[in-house]
Amino acid sequence: MPEKMIVPFLPKPRRLHGGGRAAKLARARPVQPRAPYIVRNFPIMRILDEEGLQLIERNADTILQEVGMEFRGDPEVLDIFRAAGADVQGERVRFERGMCRKIIQASAPRAFDQRARNRANDIHIGGASAVFTPAGGAPFVHDIERGRRYGSHEDYLNLLKIAQTLPCIHTASGGICELVDVPVPQRHLHTVYAQFRYTDRAIKGVVRSPQAAIDTLEMAKLVFGDEFLQSNCCIYSGVNTNSPLVFDVTMMAALKIYARHRQAVLVSAYVLGGAMGPLGVAGSLSQQLAETLGGLALIQLISPGAPCAMGCFIGTVSMQTGAPAFGTPESLRGITIAAELARRLGVPASCAGGAVTASKIPDAQAATESALTLQASFFAGINYISHAVGWLEGGLSAGYEKMIIDADLCSALQGFAQPLDVSEDGQALDAVREVGPGSHYLGCANTQRNFETAHWRPLVADSGTYEQWQAEGGRDAAVRANAIWKKMLGEYEAPPIDPGVDEALRTYRDRRLREIQGGT
Amino acid sequence: MPEKMIVPFLPKPRRLHGGGRAAKLARARPVQPRAPYIVRNFPIMRILDEEGLQLIERNADTILQEVGMEFRGDPEVLDIFRAAGADVQGERVRFERGMCRKIIQASAPRAFDQRARNRANDIHIGGASAVFTPAGGAPFVHDIERGRRYGSHEDYLNLLKIAQTLPCIHTASGGICELVDVPVPQRHLHTVYAQFRYTDRAIKGVVRSPQAAIDTLEMAKLVFGDEFLQSNCCIYSGVNTNSPLVFDVTMMAALKIYARHRQAVLVSAYVLGGAMGPLGVAGSLSQQLAETLGGLALIQLISPGAPCAMGCFIGTVSMQTGAPAFGTPESLRGITIAAELARRLGVPASCAGGAVTASKIPDAQAATESALTLQASFFAGINYISHAVGWLEGGLSAGYEKMIIDADLCSALQGFAQPLDVSEDGQALDAVREVGPGSHYLGCANTQRNFETAHWRPLVADSGTYEQWQAEGGRDAAVRANAIWKKMLGEYEAPPIDPGVDEALRTYRDRRLREIQGGT
Repeated sequence: MPEKMIVPFLPKPRRLHGGGRAAKLARARPVQPRAPYIVRNFPIMRILDEEGLQLIERNADTILQEVGMEFRGDPEVLDIFRAAGADVQGERVRFERGMCRKIIQASAPRAFDQRARNRANDIHIGGASAVFTPAGGAPFVHDIERGRRYGSHEDYLNLLKIAQTLPCIHTASGGICELVDVPVPQRHLHTVYAQFRYTDRAIKGVVRSPQAAIDTLEMAKLVFGDEFLQSNCCIYSGVNTNSPLVFDVTMMAALKIYARHRQAVLVSAYVLGGAMGPLGVAGSLSQQLAETLGGLALIQLISPGAPCAMGCFIGTVSMQTGAPAFGTPESLRGITIAAELARRLGVPASCAGGAVTASKIPDAQAATESALTLQASFFAGINYISHAVGWLEGGLSAGYEKMIIDADLCSALQGFAQPLDVSEDGQALDAVREVGPGSHYLGCANTQRNFETAHWRPLVADSGTYEQWQAEGGRDAAVRANAIWKKMLGEYEAPPIDPGVDEALRTYRDRRLREIQGGT
Repeated sequence: MPEKMIVPFLPKPRRLHGGGRAAKLARARPVQPRAPYIVRNFPIMRILDEEGLQLIERNADTILQEVGMEFRGDPEVLDIFRAAGADVQGERVRFERGMCRKIIQASAPRAFDQRARNRANDIHIGGASAVFTPAGGAPFVHDIERGRRYGSHEDYLNLLKIAQTLPCIHTASGGICELVDVPVPQRHLHTVYAQFRYTDRAIKGVVRSPQAAIDTLEMAKLVFGDEFLQSNCCIYSGVNTNSPLVFDVTMMAALKIYARHRQAVLVSAYVLGGAMGPLGVAGSLSQQLAETLGGLALIQLISPGAPCAMGCFIGTVSMQTGAPAFGTPESLRGITIAAELARRLGVPASCAGGAVTASKIPDAQAATESALTLQASFFAGINYISHAVGWLEGGLSAGYEKMIIDADLCSALQGFAQPLDVSEDGQALDAVREVGPGSHYLGCANTQRNFETAHWRPLVADSGTYEQWQAEGGRDAAVRANAIWKKMLGEYEAPPIDPGVDEALRTYRDRRLREIQGGT
């Protein structure tokens, strides 16, 4: 386990029984430990046997061989595949059985590190590690006072600062919500700057256009230095297939730019069974594997050894309403099996299956679906868990309160991953001997020694009595979360940055904003 | 997997896109499949290595050897232990290393069946099976309209009828809430009658007093017949230790009565680390194992071969407020490891870690803690999961809406446990070939063939659009759950019962009520 660091955010102290030394210590203690990433100290959950896994892999090969994929609008990509021996007819590319897997396994790293500008926040992606990242891509934002509305530049900064304050969130995010008050071609300049200025964690790259990818890289050079960026992964970007079985020109452009600069690219096939994939989980998994094999092979053909990851999300649409549903058995099983397919392929597993929900508000439905999905992803050994805090409404909305509620979920699982304390104090035989039958442990020596660091503490969960809870206003979790994020924003301090680097980033951003305004 | 049965409850059809045949089928389909119990078709999650497990087992033996347990107020039990070779001094009983384990492993069944009056609802307890049971023991009830109040006879019947209607709940419960409007000595007569009359599922026995246990057995005889009851497990009862390391006279009395009648007894040690057990998870687990070993050994000494189960719940109390907390990393790890200890001992694992929460209302905190705990228990291989629906406020309150919200959680996990469909339709290669790149699966032949039975359907979760949700009143999950339980109660029909049996049960109940009223 990486060394713990202390975060500045201190929760409002709860009313304490007794007070005195215990109360003082409780108040002085940060709410949750911070680690740059999680190391899972338990075996991964596996639910499908070898025969079933091979069946899905065989079917993925059949799909790539018989149906193939369309790589639309990018002749260079078609040339690359043709040169590698694929069967290219028009924009349709078919692959011999096992061809994509062979290309990937020849050069793709099983795990890699992504650097943060504060190197203490570097993350490891792959193996036994797991990182939680904030929600991304929502056009709307939601809080319980103002309701649902289009996201703004201000909302994005607020949500980013909240994410930076949460100890259990391991990366920044370029797209917690859309900056609807900023013209589309300019948005990425604000979000890349903000990730570097208002967080000191590993960032996400922009894939919206080739120019956005280039700007991301140029700004990363200003932070990390050109030479360092050439030999280190400092940007993690996600490209999606257009399921079923299509890669579009925008995504391929971003993939090529990042891969050529040896920055990490996640290839996701966001398959919702019944709509963009077959109804059955086995069928959706085969199609998803086929699509990601195609995308990952392209990365390795372009830039052998470039860091990459396989997307592992499976969802469904309601056959009654056509709407995407989350936290379903199909989704939970699909994610768990997909993680295994990624490990068998030999690349890190990434999953949109964080705290995902179809609920419009941070209610019990939101929490049930979020907890089911995030826990399954975590137990299944997913390495990079996207949308771990803040997601609402099938990704259409980012919730302020949802950020806080989900953070308890993330930090509970982070705690779960810690090794069991089997020290003398952890075994506590001395305490059992001291207390004996029929007494209690509240005052024994072991408790006195260890209570300060014992037990995980949530941000928003209230475990007090009914009477106390009622006296404090009978507030539900969302109302308490509202007070917490406001306090976080009120106390937020931007992490220190070299003034020269900040100046260079601002200069780049402002020049490019003017150029885009001017139409270049 | 046991054969699916159809339940009478049909949800209100959702507004459908399109309509026609699809809409008609969707409306006609029951919301969730019913199975008498779950068979887990996936490997159990294990998080502690052999060395760690042996350490905990060794420490449990050390506790039993050095500290021992107190069996208070029951000389017969002390004689039983003395005769078996234990070191009995006063009420303190100490056991040689390995003695309890040896006694248990000599005769306790690894798994057993519990009979229901509708034999189609018999449950299997142990091995790869899992059952979900309703919450139990709450003095208060809660619904979002009337708030929190003492539970009544009427509330109990309501909650029991809701449980009977939920396809994913596999047993009845004698104590979803307390019947505060009924004198304590009379309550069990109403709850045992109600379990037999208003449900047709496996029942829970009462342990409140020796007479309550005897009444439960007598009424079970009227339902199952004396002879059948002698050779079949028809009652499942839970007794608790008084942690740390005490068995009280009431619990021992119930244990002896049920064990002698070869009815199943669960021995639980409800250890909350920092209060009734040591702070550390490893210490709490050792103490819990010691206590359950003592109780289970007593069962097997009294009645070799009697069905029994080991309780596996670990919780914590907040070191800031002293209040019990749920869904914590300590609890999730404790439950998961305890399940492994039960399997190693060779008895079914039972756990209070269903949908448990400290929240006072069915909000996001309640759902987060409930989902984390229930999912961990389920993945860890717990066989009998108590409090799977309805629990609030650390067990002090049973929630009407919480029953419904938790049911979605239970049925999602029930769905997760199903084997992956790897039939031709499940693999769906025909569909991928038919649809090809860039289209969708909504109308393909595979979807047309299978959409009727495809995909799990929740009771309360809403996956519709924001606009549709808003048009329907913008109701949160709790408000929707309120409408659902009211509809369930409105449409509830008691399962058929032999009028003679019903008459005999009523006669017994009423006679005993009069006797108790008269003081006998």
